[in-house]
Amino acid sequence: MNYRIVWNVLGKVLLAEALLMLLPLASALIYGESPLPFVLTILPLLAVGGGLSLVKIRKSELFAREGFVIVGLSWILMSAFGALPFVFAGDIPHYVDAVFETVSGFTTTGASILNDIEGMSRGCMFWRLFTHWIGGMGVLVFIAAILPVSGDHYMHIMRAEVPGPEVSKLVPRARKTARILYMIYLAMTLIETALLLCGGMSFYDALLHSFATAGTGGFSTRAASIAAYDSVYIEMVVAVFMILFGVNFNLYYLILIGQVAGALKSEELLTYLGIITASVLAIAANIASMVGGFAQGLRYAVFQVGTIISTTGFATANFDAWPEFSRWLLVLLMFVGSCAGSTGGGIKISRIIILLKSYLNELKQLILPTRVRRIWLEGKPVSDTTVRSVLVVFHVYIAIIGLSVLALTLDGRDIVTNFTASCACIFNVGPGLGLVGPTGNYFFFSDLSKIILSMEMLIGRLEVFPVLFLFAPSVWRRR
Amino acid sequence: MNYRIVWNVLGKVLLAEALLMLLPLASALIYGESPLPFVLTILPLLAVGGGLSLVKIRKSELFAREGFVIVGLSWILMSAFGALPFVFAGDIPHYVDAVFETVSGFTTTGASILNDIEGMSRGCMFWRLFTHWIGGMGVLVFIAAILPVSGDHYMHIMRAEVPGPEVSKLVPRARKTARILYMIYLAMTLIETALLLCGGMSFYDALLHSFATAGTGGFSTRAASIAAYDSVYIEMVVAVFMILFGVNFNLYYLILIGQVAGALKSEELLTYLGIITASVLAIAANIASMVGGFAQGLRYAVFQVGTIISTTGFATANFDAWPEFSRWLLVLLMFVGSCAGSTGGGIKISRIIILLKSYLNELKQLILPTRVRRIWLEGKPVSDTTVRSVLVVFHVYIAIIGLSVLALTLDGRDIVTNFTASCACIFNVGPGLGLVGPTGNYFFFSDLSKIILSMEMLIGRLEVFPVLFLFAPSVWRRR
Repeated sequence: MNYRIVWNVLGKVLLAEALLMLLPLASALIYGESPLPFVLTILPLLAVGGGLSLVKIRKSELFAREGFVIVGLSWILMSAFGALPFVFAGDIPHYVDAVFETVSGFTTTGASILNDIEGMSRGCMFWRLFTHWIGGMGVLVFIAAILPVSGDHYMHIMRAEVPGPEVSKLVPRARKTARILYMIYLAMTLIETALLLCGGMSFYDALLHSFATAGTGGFSTRAASIAAYDSVYIEMVVAVFMILFGVNFNLYYLILIGQVAGALKSEELLTYLGIITASVLAIAANIASMVGGFAQGLRYAVFQVGTIISTTGFATANFDAWPEFSRWLLVLLMFVGSCAGSTGGGIKISRIIILLKSYLNELKQLILPTRVRRIWLEGKPVSDTTVRSVLVVFHVYIAIIGLSVLALTLDGRDIVTNFTASCACIFNVGPGLGLVGPTGNYFFFSDLSKIILSMEMLIGRLEVFPVLFLFAPSVWRRR
Repeated sequence: MNYRIVWNVLGKVLLAEALLMLLPLASALIYGESPLPFVLTILPLLAVGGGLSLVKIRKSELFAREGFVIVGLSWILMSAFGALPFVFAGDIPHYVDAVFETVSGFTTTGASILNDIEGMSRGCMFWRLFTHWIGGMGVLVFIAAILPVSGDHYMHIMRAEVPGPEVSKLVPRARKTARILYMIYLAMTLIETALLLCGGMSFYDALLHSFATAGTGGFSTRAASIAAYDSVYIEMVVAVFMILFGVNFNLYYLILIGQVAGALKSEELLTYLGIITASVLAIAANIASMVGGFAQGLRYAVFQVGTIISTTGFATANFDAWPEFSRWLLVLLMFVGSCAGSTGGGIKISRIIILLKSYLNELKQLILPTRVRRIWLEGKPVSDTTVRSVLVVFHVYIAIIGLSVLALTLDGRDIVTNFTASCACIFNVGPGLGLVGPTGNYFFFSDLSKIILSMEMLIGRLEVFPVLFLFAPSVWRRR
């Protein structure tokens, strides 16, 4: 293990967090609130971050395991520091609650413990929704974009932080990739902000909800979430952008360089849109008689399918009160999730495709055992290593959900609440069913359960290994 | 596809079923009931079975796909004919219900649609519990044991019918293997019968409950199941035998030939016993205050853990009313199931071990990518093909559960009922939680749902592929 490079990069991460916290600080000043909660957080961030980044890198080699450790520790440290303003401002006095809320923010989950959302200070609310925007694209991708570091070895970090079974080599140099991704991300966020302004939202609300949509997070400035605005226009803008942010960003890059046809033929994109269309129609038909017609059903279904499959988690309706068919279909969509290389969570469409194909292969193998079969995705063969890794990751998700629900039951809540809470956290969705449904929140869980759910959010966002890596003793051995 | 051998073997299967039906026929005569329901079933069985077995085998080659097709079709045909006595006797007038009950019997699931269990005729009740005994070891293994067929190509059939990731080559010739397995099976069944007689059960009840235990089925002659006898002795006899029938039968063979130490060191056996012990202690502690002390808790926990992990499904307590922790732990045990090569269902301990090891391997691979790692089980390396197949089978189970629950929700029941019904059927357990808990049954489901659940039982018992094979068009192509 190359410890020096780990400490050095962690230092830069904390300095970047201090830098990013200037925005909520400014927001607090603009609205006449005390800047102290942020000042008191920025100072230790600068001290610790500055100190660590002074560690000299002797060998600039960075292997996969350093990448995983850097990413795992970065997200934990950022959440530990990021929770402080909420405590200092008195908006979330209990530290475990504040950590839960911050992890939920950075991982773009959107599960909240807040009982009085409208009562939060403006500065903290800005920070709360800004964490979604930071987490959506990943903070290390951000650092790779802004810092003048020799780019090559950042590939290992991006592999650990960018969702999906494989990091496709979009453009040769990681730093250039990171910049392009962030430009697209920023542009789409600003377009959504403009469109929401046209719908009559205040600039503060429009910007913050765009942050939350871009990261596919789901925190809102309002207790009633998007339903508070009671506007079909706003609902549809948000729905479309949720679905757009669930698309693989490589496709936007392809469109940018003019390869529109190639982008639109993407197997993953077509599957994603197919699942959305089928689910919207099924749910609209299922709830039509309950909400007053198919058209009204479509309105709710489009929004709710978009919010769940993109793993955002905004709400316009209490889907927990919908018929069992729609409720369970939404749970299944949590598992599916969005496209690889998007800001969304879940198992990811490309993994689902690989899983289905490997199942068909297994069947074909039994029928005609002689031929060797490969799995193809987007016209390219998928390596056996990737296939095995996809199969294993799926199993690990299921095992973690099964065991974490067992731990959550010790709080005594019902199985549907615990099961969907666990799914909603590991797949970074936010709301579940029962007590954690769109009208509820996560406040009632015990501290132990909140810590378990926070771990699940990190495991889901970083796709299992960077987090579990930290618990493997052999990782920490010097070579 | 070698159609001739398929028809020929299917004919023998139906003739074997006619033969096996002589026992319930005798039972009906002994208790002074009409033998007509059985006579009316045996006649068409003889006609169809006799006709098919006249098909001459030209090439005696039998490949894996013929094996899968024979096994899949055998189980479906046997259930289709096996349901007839219930209809003819008027005990289960609706044919879909009768098929559900028969599939549940043969697959040793034990999920019932009977509302008036004590009202069933003695002959039909004998048949109902006898199907568990037949299905436990597999009817084709039975045919391999009794018929003088050249043994070699039966390996492919046994591979499709015997549960577990690999058929271990117990003894070189399949026919000898089958005979040894059936001798052990019969002996253990008779020992349990004797022990239950000592506990004061009638011979009829003792024999039938031993059938149901041996097949890890779970049907009972009493609505209250084993609780009806209110005897700690009977509960413990049944509990011990449920756990014993969940053990890999190869171990009993090893013990028979004197390799006791080797058998007791089995990785799978130790894991199985370890999971049972840990679960019993956890549940006993969890329910202690509710049932009047830890000792009483242990009594219920031993029985209930044994019944669920062996996937039998007898009941001595309404575990649906237990605390959430115990309820969820029992659901997890449904997934785990019993050992490979036992009569039980579930994912199987050996697969769980392979899954955990392949997960650890994946983690190690990321830490030190250079070394090639194999997975070892019972001191032997597991082939990559087997590992991939285990990973895929796990995924298929989860996918089938997810989608079948979606179909079941159309009946409008709650998620816990639908989810645990689906798990209890695919893992061949029987009772679930909610409406299908130990005090409920499956009667209320619609015909469509009953057909889906029957398919799940077959998929679970035959471990996915033989059933899905039947739907693959390329299987049916002549070469």
